[in-house]
Amino acid sequence: MNKPTPQSDFSTPKVTTGPLPASRKVYTHPKADPSLSVPRRMIDLHPSANEEPVPVYDTSGPYSDPSVTIDVEKGLARHRTEWVLERGGVEEYEGRDVRPEDNGGVSGKHLAREFPTKHRPLKATNFDPTGSVALNPKRTDADREANRKPVTQYEFATAGIITKEMIYVAERENLGRQEMLENAEAQIAQGESFGAEIPPFITPEFVRDEIAKGRAIIPANINHPELEPQIIGRNFLVKINANIGNSAVTSSVEEEVDKMVWATRWGADNVMDLSTGRNIHNTREWIIRNSPVPIGTVPIYQALEKVNGVAEDLTWEIYRDTLIEQAEQGVDYFTIHAGVRLAYIHLTAKRVTGIVSRGGSIMAKWMLAHHTESFLYTHFEDICDIMRAYDVSFSLGDGLRPGSIADANDAAQFAELETLGELTKIAHAKGCQVMIEGPGHVPMHKIKINMDKQLRECGGAPFYTLGPLTTDIAPGYDHITSGIGAAMIGWYGTAMLCYVTPKEHLGLPDRDDVKVGVITYKLAAHAADLAKGHPAAQIRDDALSRARFEFRWEDQFNLSLDPETARDYHDQTLPKEAHKVA
Amino acid sequence: MNKPTPQSDFSTPKVTTGPLPASRKVYTHPKADPSLSVPRRMIDLHPSANEEPVPVYDTSGPYSDPSVTIDVEKGLARHRTEWVLERGGVEEYEGRDVRPEDNGGVSGKHLAREFPTKHRPLKATNFDPTGSVALNPKRTDADREANRKPVTQYEFATAGIITKEMIYVAERENLGRQEMLENAEAQIAQGESFGAEIPPFITPEFVRDEIAKGRAIIPANINHPELEPQIIGRNFLVKINANIGNSAVTSSVEEEVDKMVWATRWGADNVMDLSTGRNIHNTREWIIRNSPVPIGTVPIYQALEKVNGVAEDLTWEIYRDTLIEQAEQGVDYFTIHAGVRLAYIHLTAKRVTGIVSRGGSIMAKWMLAHHTESFLYTHFEDICDIMRAYDVSFSLGDGLRPGSIADANDAAQFAELETLGELTKIAHAKGCQVMIEGPGHVPMHKIKINMDKQLRECGGAPFYTLGPLTTDIAPGYDHITSGIGAAMIGWYGTAMLCYVTPKEHLGLPDRDDVKVGVITYKLAAHAADLAKGHPAAQIRDDALSRARFEFRWEDQFNLSLDPETARDYHDQTLPKEAHKVA
Repeated sequence: MNKPTPQSDFSTPKVTTGPLPASRKVYTHPKADPSLSVPRRMIDLHPSANEEPVPVYDTSGPYSDPSVTIDVEKGLARHRTEWVLERGGVEEYEGRDVRPEDNGGVSGKHLAREFPTKHRPLKATNFDPTGSVALNPKRTDADREANRKPVTQYEFATAGIITKEMIYVAERENLGRQEMLENAEAQIAQGESFGAEIPPFITPEFVRDEIAKGRAIIPANINHPELEPQIIGRNFLVKINANIGNSAVTSSVEEEVDKMVWATRWGADNVMDLSTGRNIHNTREWIIRNSPVPIGTVPIYQALEKVNGVAEDLTWEIYRDTLIEQAEQGVDYFTIHAGVRLAYIHLTAKRVTGIVSRGGSIMAKWMLAHHTESFLYTHFEDICDIMRAYDVSFSLGDGLRPGSIADANDAAQFAELETLGELTKIAHAKGCQVMIEGPGHVPMHKIKINMDKQLRECGGAPFYTLGPLTTDIAPGYDHITSGIGAAMIGWYGTAMLCYVTPKEHLGLPDRDDVKVGVITYKLAAHAADLAKGHPAAQIRDDALSRARFEFRWEDQFNLSLDPETARDYHDQTLPKEAHKVA
Repeated sequence: MNKPTPQSDFSTPKVTTGPLPASRKVYTHPKADPSLSVPRRMIDLHPSANEEPVPVYDTSGPYSDPSVTIDVEKGLARHRTEWVLERGGVEEYEGRDVRPEDNGGVSGKHLAREFPTKHRPLKATNFDPTGSVALNPKRTDADREANRKPVTQYEFATAGIITKEMIYVAERENLGRQEMLENAEAQIAQGESFGAEIPPFITPEFVRDEIAKGRAIIPANINHPELEPQIIGRNFLVKINANIGNSAVTSSVEEEVDKMVWATRWGADNVMDLSTGRNIHNTREWIIRNSPVPIGTVPIYQALEKVNGVAEDLTWEIYRDTLIEQAEQGVDYFTIHAGVRLAYIHLTAKRVTGIVSRGGSIMAKWMLAHHTESFLYTHFEDICDIMRAYDVSFSLGDGLRPGSIADANDAAQFAELETLGELTKIAHAKGCQVMIEGPGHVPMHKIKINMDKQLRECGGAPFYTLGPLTTDIAPGYDHITSGIGAAMIGWYGTAMLCYVTPKEHLGLPDRDDVKVGVITYKLAAHAADLAKGHPAAQIRDDALSRARFEFRWEDQFNLSLDPETARDYHDQTLPKEAHKVA
């Protein structure tokens, strides 16, 4: 499995294209802006059903559209550049040069090929990427504010402006809701949303208002124009995230691009590139240029590579430079563990599993070595300035999340969560979009406490949780131990669920693991949508149940989250075609 | 896959034996009766851990004990016969002759070989298996009562008598609790059991009291002396059931015996034999004679085979004869759909998925054909007399359970549940042990309503649910959609969870599916135990988490529910032995 990526051998990543069975991609055009084309997948049923096609949310981008020619060497169409430019407040500039350390210092045949086209990045016009306030003390707050125009979705929202992204996501979320409108109120009423405020119909104004309140985000870096915008918030469909990424020992650029496309094919709304090995910069560029979904990263991972893995050698300047590097590439959200404060480290001393977050333990090591507060915390406002300038959303990391049932909901975890609440306020004041990361490992009876505290501390900012795993005793099945917790916390109000694959705790996920993880989390998110009373969620369940009751096997396969597996399992027992007809 | 079972080809079933990795079977001897040997699995840790072995509940019977010689042709040791005989009230008798229709009328090479040894059955001395009250009108209630001595665990419990089975299960449940006793109260206090009354330590008297209150059962037919007794109730560890069984088109006796042993190896506390094809009688005999766990059946399935699959042709007499046949073999619990009443059928008319329970739809068909009340309902007291005579426990079936999200918690389902409450009272008055079956397909926000209603209607009788599935859109992954619901309803108070395999709705589970189903439900049951605050549940989580934190890979594998899969997943990425040492 030890696969370096020799430049000479590097081939064009192969990705899976084409529609899912019985599915057509259609584009709808919102009334508020008919120039926009919003994707939707329609599943056609057998004529004997005499039923309308079933609309489902489509995260797969142009890859599943047979009318689009896919060329991974060119990347996806950059349709959103125009949206960003026409509203102003941004400018193109030269951008940072790629340096050898960005790719872990590899060269020659070990260096992954650069993405063929280089795009000049955009930034907020008032932002100086060459230096922060700290590095450039001559620049005053007055200078900065003089040129300040809205750049982020949060700034537009608070200014009362509805962006194209907001119109797009409103149309996208409504999926089937128009058809369900008659009983939308009834659906919402029969659900239990624990105080969420799900409307019968999503309007662009509702989207704007939720973003302005800090209760939802549209992760959409101005340098990721290939993106199909999507909204994350408690009053919208529950979203899922799939982690991919190479490591020091395994996998290649080709594999990671393929995994990204593969994950979105099965329903990943977001993808995090957690690469930690060599070629981090070039791998990320290939991924972003080809990604129809937001890409998140944990910048401290790359910063650590730049100091050869020695946490103590990290500096604010190296970290800052990494943020600029990734923001220019188009990363849509950064996990930043700014809530791990020096004062909290001792709270983990008696834990069964100490600090398990990689980012959290890197920063703890740095703080203990320097006996000083984390630079992520002390430079938090500078970080906000950078993120605002590109509209990179915050994913405030839970560096002290519990790594075991024993450590759930302890003093360390909750101290950090309270700090994340403070930082949320600062980031909003600075114009940034914010979501909050959550645990981890939590037994069922302690899950709702997490959700309630997060809503309270963070003023309703979207919660983004990893599982949580509801027991520690099933390695190899942690997609399931965590899928239980994910469905529950999604029901309670979590806006996005980070998937866990069967390889969690054991190894790196391969393509099959990615698929199992995505499908598991898709079903957990959907179970949450049903329980919350989402007006359109049950359309698909009902269509599939009718197909099942009427023995329309093909329809049952086609309506399922994973038609291939459903068909395969059926055929293992009853392979005859005759068993499949209505 | 179409495999008949030619008599000539029939070979001795091959079953999996031997201990799990790093595991030893030990037997403890309860203070209340040191002659009893109660199994427990001890998992030894690496010397570097400097930790005590971890005790885990062991359902695998003698198969995992290297000191026992397994001979499937002879069956397991019949250790419990003596317990039953010494307390009196029962007598050996000739028993019913096996008839061709018991095996679906097959003969010659299609007939599965009979189990080599025939044992004369036991019955309550006051019971006449040749005729019920209806068939034998001369017998009066007075006759019956004159000879009545306690036979069932419920009768002993209400008479204030502690049986060996009660002592056995108390010892078995306490697993590790003695060692945890110091903080047992604290563990219970930090849990949320929704009003269950979990004691810090399980005494035989507590077991007796719970059974007498109808809140727990020990399924243990007096003709299944091979059994290692186990208790099912809300104040005990959550149990799981695995379904096996052949069908008209697939699988053989050998496969089913192997599946039973395989399921218990991975943690099935109970096994239901849902065979519907030919050779039902002989298959069941092989299974029971080799089963260390209670075996349940749905007798209407075999009764239907006896009338060539024509539901309308069923009669009380055929059904009654089937109950006697199976009770004499030693089936420990019967699913009986006596709550499906004629008046409820119209309540299913507007459902999306009508009646999906096989037993429920058989009886609905019968009632509609005859325009008369179900014989299961009208003969319920006669059924009680039979079940009491062998101590077969009731598993009152939910024939009107919802088959889709759309049908959850509807009038049909709840009307039946109310009737099951009435029948519970009758069965208790007749001296029988009772548990109640539950759904099915239920979205998360409607699960607790089921649990609360069941507790209310059925006076705390153990609830035994199938999942429930929390969405309908993931065929191929229904072990997960249902594992979510199972963990939640287990937490809320369900005593036993019937597993769902990945093949649910699609085909019959093979050996691999059985294992995945068992492990999924084991982890769901354990998640429920943790959340309820079971005093000893977290011992294993903590031990595994410590191993994980200290990179003791071997310990992590060995402590997991499925060491083989955990090891395999690890080795796919990091195969070197060096990566596994502490």
